[in-house]
Amino acid sequence: MSSSEAPARPVGQDAHAFVDRHIGPRGAEYERLLSTVGVDSLADLVDRAIPASIRQDQELELPDALTEAEVLAELRKIADQNDPGTPMIGQGFYGTITPPAIARNLLESPAWYTAYTPYQPEISQGRLELLLTFQTMVQGLTGLPIANASLLDEASAVAEAALLMSRANRKAKNGVILVDQDLFPQSLALLPGRARAVGLDLRILDLTEGLPEIDEPVAGVILQQSGSSGRLHDWSGLIGAAHERNAMVTVVADLLALTLVAAPGDLGADISVGTSQRFGVPLFAGGPHAAFMAVSEGLQRSMPGRLVGVSHDDAGRPAYRLALQTREQHIRREKATSNICTAQALLAEVAACYAAYHGPEGLTAIAKRVHGHAVNLAAALTEAGVELVVEQFFDTVVARVPGRADDILAAAADRGIDLRRVDADHVGVSTDERTTAADIAAVAEVFGAKAPSSELREPDLPENLRRSSDFLTHENFHAYRSETRMMRWLRRLADRDLALDRTMIPLGSCTMKLNAAVEMAAITWPEFADVHPYSPAERMQGWQYLVTDLEERLAEITGYAKVSVQPNAGSQGELAGLLAIRRWHISRGDEQRDICLIPASAHGTNAASAVLAGLRVRVVKTAENGTIDSADLHKAIAENEGRVAAIMITYPSTHGVFESEVRAVCDTVHAAGGQVYVDGANLNAMVGLARPGRFGGDVSHLNLHKTFCIPHGGGGPGVGPVAVAEHLVPFLPGDPLAGDPGRPTVGGSTNDAEPPKDAESLGKGLPVTSTRWGSTGVLPISWAYLALMGAEGLTRASSVALLNANYLAKRLNEHFPVLYTGEDGLVAHECILDFRKLTARSGIAVADVSKRLIDYGFHAPTESFPVSGTLMVEPTESEDLAELDRFVDTMIAIRAEIEEVAQGKITAEDSVLRNAPHTAAVLVADEWDRTYSREQAAFPLSALRVDKYFPPVGRIDGAHGDRNLVCSCPPPEAFADATTTATTAQETE
Amino acid sequence: MSSSEAPARPVGQDAHAFVDRHIGPRGAEYERLLSTVGVDSLADLVDRAIPASIRQDQELELPDALTEAEVLAELRKIADQNDPGTPMIGQGFYGTITPPAIARNLLESPAWYTAYTPYQPEISQGRLELLLTFQTMVQGLTGLPIANASLLDEASAVAEAALLMSRANRKAKNGVILVDQDLFPQSLALLPGRARAVGLDLRILDLTEGLPEIDEPVAGVILQQSGSSGRLHDWSGLIGAAHERNAMVTVVADLLALTLVAAPGDLGADISVGTSQRFGVPLFAGGPHAAFMAVSEGLQRSMPGRLVGVSHDDAGRPAYRLALQTREQHIRREKATSNICTAQALLAEVAACYAAYHGPEGLTAIAKRVHGHAVNLAAALTEAGVELVVEQFFDTVVARVPGRADDILAAAADRGIDLRRVDADHVGVSTDERTTAADIAAVAEVFGAKAPSSELREPDLPENLRRSSDFLTHENFHAYRSETRMMRWLRRLADRDLALDRTMIPLGSCTMKLNAAVEMAAITWPEFADVHPYSPAERMQGWQYLVTDLEERLAEITGYAKVSVQPNAGSQGELAGLLAIRRWHISRGDEQRDICLIPASAHGTNAASAVLAGLRVRVVKTAENGTIDSADLHKAIAENEGRVAAIMITYPSTHGVFESEVRAVCDTVHAAGGQVYVDGANLNAMVGLARPGRFGGDVSHLNLHKTFCIPHGGGGPGVGPVAVAEHLVPFLPGDPLAGDPGRPTVGGSTNDAEPPKDAESLGKGLPVTSTRWGSTGVLPISWAYLALMGAEGLTRASSVALLNANYLAKRLNEHFPVLYTGEDGLVAHECILDFRKLTARSGIAVADVSKRLIDYGFHAPTESFPVSGTLMVEPTESEDLAELDRFVDTMIAIRAEIEEVAQGKITAEDSVLRNAPHTAAVLVADEWDRTYSREQAAFPLSALRVDKYFPPVGRIDGAHGDRNLVCSCPPPEAFADATTTATTAQETE
Repeated sequence: MSSSEAPARPVGQDAHAFVDRHIGPRGAEYERLLSTVGVDSLADLVDRAIPASIRQDQELELPDALTEAEVLAELRKIADQNDPGTPMIGQGFYGTITPPAIARNLLESPAWYTAYTPYQPEISQGRLELLLTFQTMVQGLTGLPIANASLLDEASAVAEAALLMSRANRKAKNGVILVDQDLFPQSLALLPGRARAVGLDLRILDLTEGLPEIDEPVAGVILQQSGSSGRLHDWSGLIGAAHERNAMVTVVADLLALTLVAAPGDLGADISVGTSQRFGVPLFAGGPHAAFMAVSEGLQRSMPGRLVGVSHDDAGRPAYRLALQTREQHIRREKATSNICTAQALLAEVAACYAAYHGPEGLTAIAKRVHGHAVNLAAALTEAGVELVVEQFFDTVVARVPGRADDILAAAADRGIDLRRVDADHVGVSTDERTTAADIAAVAEVFGAKAPSSELREPDLPENLRRSSDFLTHENFHAYRSETRMMRWLRRLADRDLALDRTMIPLGSCTMKLNAAVEMAAITWPEFADVHPYSPAERMQGWQYLVTDLEERLAEITGYAKVSVQPNAGSQGELAGLLAIRRWHISRGDEQRDICLIPASAHGTNAASAVLAGLRVRVVKTAENGTIDSADLHKAIAENEGRVAAIMITYPSTHGVFESEVRAVCDTVHAAGGQVYVDGANLNAMVGLARPGRFGGDVSHLNLHKTFCIPHGGGGPGVGPVAVAEHLVPFLPGDPLAGDPGRPTVGGSTNDAEPPKDAESLGKGLPVTSTRWGSTGVLPISWAYLALMGAEGLTRASSVALLNANYLAKRLNEHFPVLYTGEDGLVAHECILDFRKLTARSGIAVADVSKRLIDYGFHAPTESFPVSGTLMVEPTESEDLAELDRFVDTMIAIRAEIEEVAQGKITAEDSVLRNAPHTAAVLVADEWDRTYSREQAAFPLSALRVDKYFPPVGRIDGAHGDRNLVCSCPPPEAFADATTTATTAQETE
Repeated sequence: MSSSEAPARPVGQDAHAFVDRHIGPRGAEYERLLSTVGVDSLADLVDRAIPASIRQDQELELPDALTEAEVLAELRKIADQNDPGTPMIGQGFYGTITPPAIARNLLESPAWYTAYTPYQPEISQGRLELLLTFQTMVQGLTGLPIANASLLDEASAVAEAALLMSRANRKAKNGVILVDQDLFPQSLALLPGRARAVGLDLRILDLTEGLPEIDEPVAGVILQQSGSSGRLHDWSGLIGAAHERNAMVTVVADLLALTLVAAPGDLGADISVGTSQRFGVPLFAGGPHAAFMAVSEGLQRSMPGRLVGVSHDDAGRPAYRLALQTREQHIRREKATSNICTAQALLAEVAACYAAYHGPEGLTAIAKRVHGHAVNLAAALTEAGVELVVEQFFDTVVARVPGRADDILAAAADRGIDLRRVDADHVGVSTDERTTAADIAAVAEVFGAKAPSSELREPDLPENLRRSSDFLTHENFHAYRSETRMMRWLRRLADRDLALDRTMIPLGSCTMKLNAAVEMAAITWPEFADVHPYSPAERMQGWQYLVTDLEERLAEITGYAKVSVQPNAGSQGELAGLLAIRRWHISRGDEQRDICLIPASAHGTNAASAVLAGLRVRVVKTAENGTIDSADLHKAIAENEGRVAAIMITYPSTHGVFESEVRAVCDTVHAAGGQVYVDGANLNAMVGLARPGRFGGDVSHLNLHKTFCIPHGGGGPGVGPVAVAEHLVPFLPGDPLAGDPGRPTVGGSTNDAEPPKDAESLGKGLPVTSTRWGSTGVLPISWAYLALMGAEGLTRASSVALLNANYLAKRLNEHFPVLYTGEDGLVAHECILDFRKLTARSGIAVADVSKRLIDYGFHAPTESFPVSGTLMVEPTESEDLAELDRFVDTMIAIRAEIEEVAQGKITAEDSVLRNAPHTAAVLVADEWDRTYSREQAAFPLSALRVDKYFPPVGRIDGAHGDRNLVCSCPPPEAFADATTTATTAQETE
């Protein structure tokens, strides 16, 4: 749309249109963008870029766009329909206090939440330090030597542990997994579906009496401490017995309890998983929260999830990076053993800061208080003759109250307190950081007991349950205990990183666009943030409305029948979608349909998810022009007649083009009896313009953290709703507590969920995460985005995303050939710049360009995906002409730098590119022996003289880090050693 | 208190004590601090540092300390007692929308709000750019060439304009000031008291018919556009007539209206004042808001308030700084013509960003909408036969409704809308950015009129009222219109500055301590932020409670009978306190008591405030040991027998010591019939330890932005409550609307304020700002601080402030002699480091040290106050040992650098000190011809290699800027010219 095409608005009405804040270009900029691309208008561009066969013929049916003020008012109304009350339900979700210093300086700071995953470690040292602190914290508390930088949620982490034991236990490979029945119900609900999908023999039983006599080899055992019943059990005997039978052991643990209770590692466990939610992360009605996994030595290379490690940079300074990445799904594809991609980085960072702020003494004090309240309650109940289910507990007291559970719950609810309905005869009460003596008194009262003394006593756990080992001894857990120190630490770390608040992050396929302040505003409102996921339905009417409305809007946008927001990452969305396909085939008697066709250019996660859904992958070749090789597709289908379950395609393709034959591909697969899975990673090119559910897709997952403005959070949270056509609706993931007697229902009526038996047999409604709505807490962000943009705004955003990408493609093509375009010479919302010839001529690799971009103040585009030796660039609609031009100017300047090498004026080794990025320490060093000048290195463009980002470390040696794996915070001396050589005389005074 | 002295707390109770977050040192650090100072315990230190004669003998009677969570819950309860409703009262305060992008990235960002006043311009370029943008905005809209960087509030700005005209009009010096009666009532209430205090002849009358026939020379005329009646009047004739009579003209103007209405400058006005509140700054129940003053060429050197100007740095780059500082009160002391010290920097920055975000078209669109709604209402009322008071208006419609005003107000209140009660027969309705067609329909209805069409029409103002000139043409009002651009601009500017979120700011007398996130949390809650200051009392029950409670707590802390929070800066507190003294003397028939004794070491503002309170200043000498020269004091009293009004002392003194003879000084002055004014600037040394109201003070003002944690905001807001002994209570500042028929009262009862006639005659209850409680909006910060700390915590904070200062004094004394100490060799909460001998030996001045500190990542201490050639250092209690040691290490390193010069190894001119600070551009330049190395310049301490602050400009040439005054944003080319010389080849592609 040229500026003259802007719709006439009523007097004064346009001043508050959010669309114009979200979208970068405006006014006269459009003329320049459109003319460079060579189109007449936005409409003309869209007509030419998108195949007519898939074009959406009418505007999206969405409510009118609201202004920012209106959206806040609307969210306020929705929030007011929630009533968090005082949840004492526990079950993996606990009241906690997010220190305001951490909320303001981390959770609510764009420098933190707009960051991307730390794949470019030189510009990610700040968040890598916090993630390493998280790992160190988990290691310390679990007593295990290796911990990853978070998993998605506790229940799926338990499933990952089961899979890990099954494959890593060489002595009992693919043996049985035994699960104690005292795990939380949501874990017990999720495990069987995940196990069955990959043919794992998993049995749930009571292990408190020891291992059962079974004939099969046992690969692993899963226990929980403290369990669903609140029980603290001395598992050491069982763990020893399991090891004797060559079984590995996973202990699901509570990090806060571990300050008082013996650590899994100290008991001999091989693996520990759990959630770090209660370390300062709001309940968020279920998520996002960072789950963790810690493992014993030897398991690190089999462990799923991201792992931060320590290596060194080109000047020998310690530097952080993601370690052992070759393990990861995006590298291993169909050989992957886990599909975990996104972590819960932002939430792991909050938990790490919480631990640092409180330190071991502070955490212990909180744990003592939590435990003390539980002890007081137990004493009061016992004194009143109420029978307790277990003797030893940390924070959860389960009382046996035959036939009275509902009355007691109702009486507590009258006092604003929600307890856990274990079943009609049992009530659970969990204490937490927010619990007060008044709460305990009120709970005692509803049981008919007297209020206990409000005085708390020192814990008196039996020796065999008590923790004796040290934890959190690293300086990071001791140095930042005043708010001033915490604030400055977080600022210092943030300053080391580059995020969207400083520069465009032109990552192809990752859609790093504006995360508007107004969209973020509501997520920390107590009425949203403090809701317990298993609270009664009456307490979360606002959430119910928002989730339903969001799902409906997403269904309208994608053209599918129904959407579930449950998957808490794109990878989980893929898994849920593929499981739906797989289970649908099975429900129709097509058990044999287990082939998943995946184009060679697909995201690596696609194949990994297919494997975890029990499918076998057949890769389909790429044709010369980047499209799916039609001949190979037909061949694959012919070879697998009657066995094709699905094809997974990405649209527009990962080559950044709208393939015109997409409908034909869908038809071909459908004709062969297969389903079509359209990966929604690139949906930002299509909203309002084309709908995967209408041009052939049966299933898609979306990435709310891409197209729908949930910030990437420096590597998570991600949210990956799954959208399906009508026939697959019954196979959408369901409530993990469906059928559980504790499932809270509206108005206290009986549980109206599908009977679990039937659901299990057909695989209908099986959950993929711990809670109904997954990462509920961040959904207001996407809801707000949709409400602010409206149908017209969303369509315009997609169009401008295409315009910006095509502008970059046109301007850069002569310097770096754009590898693939559509039939009209246009790209979609991203473009692939081909460096291969240039690399051949000069020896300068795309990695060198990525690192050199840091010197110019940019985050690199996507590197060597989907084609090795290329950079994939996606500007999104949020960048304006000035920023696009800054990028073009930079790339052209870099092109000239490469040319110098290509022409032999300088060697690749000595070039400014190979030696990038340049730290201030290097640039200001007294010695300078480079073949280029300091100013060439630091200020290749003059604007950099005033506003310059200096990376804290130079290029990091990744291989060294993988060879010498260090995955916990190095001692301060490690850094001192690296820098003292250059200390001046004054310092020694 | 050594760590072992920490009180035994109950199990788990200490984990959430805020005191331990606010106070820096902990645990073992205390041993080191105490032993270095040479005291046994905190109690021992306090006993030895503070004279027994003034020690407070009992703990403060304050409520128990709350945790952060408890304080938030308490504030929530208080907030819920406010009900902002929909205020359409106007009168200088209007609903506005703070763009969330600006709220989050500026108003709620520690990088912005924890900054200090930009006296060190090299580390303040970011906020100086925004303040310059504010000036440019005001210049553009008012049509006048010079604008300052904000005044405190509109009513006091009007008074400043009156004083300015009186002294600057050489042709009619000290002539009459004529004021149109259609100014807002609060301005009319404030003006007479301020005028009378300095003997100014000021007359309020109707000027719409032209200038009256009077014999005296007329110094100035003050008009308002649009006026209290809503009237837009063509003042051009009157302005011409005034100029013919040699009178100057001030037009009080509305910035939003000026997008449509002829600018004061275009009409020929000499001065324009007003408020920028409606540019995105919340109503805040009255403040803080940035008022403005713009003047014509020639008045800039007489103008009060801060003025940002453009100069250049040592490399010739444009650089911002505060210009013409020699005009300012702290320099001119008793010759000062204004006592304005603090500005409203943070709020001016918000307003500037708001203008930049909307741009001229956006602001005009908002103005059209506001005006359009008013026009629609007027039409509806007219059609219904309701008579309107004026014909031409911008946003305010005043209706004549004989005898019906109260009924109409009540009917509107029933609909949640508050209108203005002009009097029993007139009702005013003001529209604003938030006004909707539904609001207008509801208002029409209560007048008995039909709802007008919701369609808005283009404005149709008569030609003589219409604006024709351009405004906001600078790039800054066009370049940051998408949220992405705004976010990055604010980040980029913040990164140029050093604030508390990165470093200690050890400013003597300025108490730069932690501004905790929890304290800041509530101020933007709508229930606090959206209340109109003139709303009915029922709407602000929460505010009433919070203000009263805060005043009572402050009275308890200071030992006075009563406190008023009205003064919205320390200087206004001083003025209010001195006016109370002056008026008390007059009320007792002691008109002749007009001598104010002020020690030579006093803050410059003291003398300025005395002058503005109508007092004459007699400076009292300083004795050799830094105390008040007792002989000179007695001499001064003897010379002025019966004429001494007061003595103003600061305690502990500005020399950083507890003077043991303070009681004697107080007694001496009292005996002479004078009052004792104790400046509360240094109260942070005394809270819980000594009370000025008990050891001799009759009046004090406090600085909530120092001792009580309101952030300095980069140069404001300040809040300066005044505290008085019982006999002065009637002379505390009162409600500016007392006696106004529009004064809202509780329950709609009659106005119960003191009759204005009597109050005026005795000077009782005269206001100093526009609203009852001044900067109401930020008072929750101090309230939260007091609630979080409790009596014990506050006392401990004061004690640790003494401990930290004494630690620095002890450690630095051998390197830089500490100039003054108390009898026990101890300092109070700050210490003066004497550089004079070192300067004599080396030629290195304290200014060189201040600039060199920037290279080390520090903000300089207070420079050459109160003693020239010294630095005054105040660490506050919030800094921990590590940060204190970083400062000590830095100062010792600098000492060694000075020694090299002193020993003649290098000249002062060539030294690293004189050439400081060093920009990245200089340090990385290919050419390096300094006598010291690059690393010496950049990394004198090794920790700087990784976390280094590079100033964006080198040392700024202040004199050049004053000689060549430029006070608006320079064009982009100014910067390009300065940097292109060093541009590399790549860029020219």
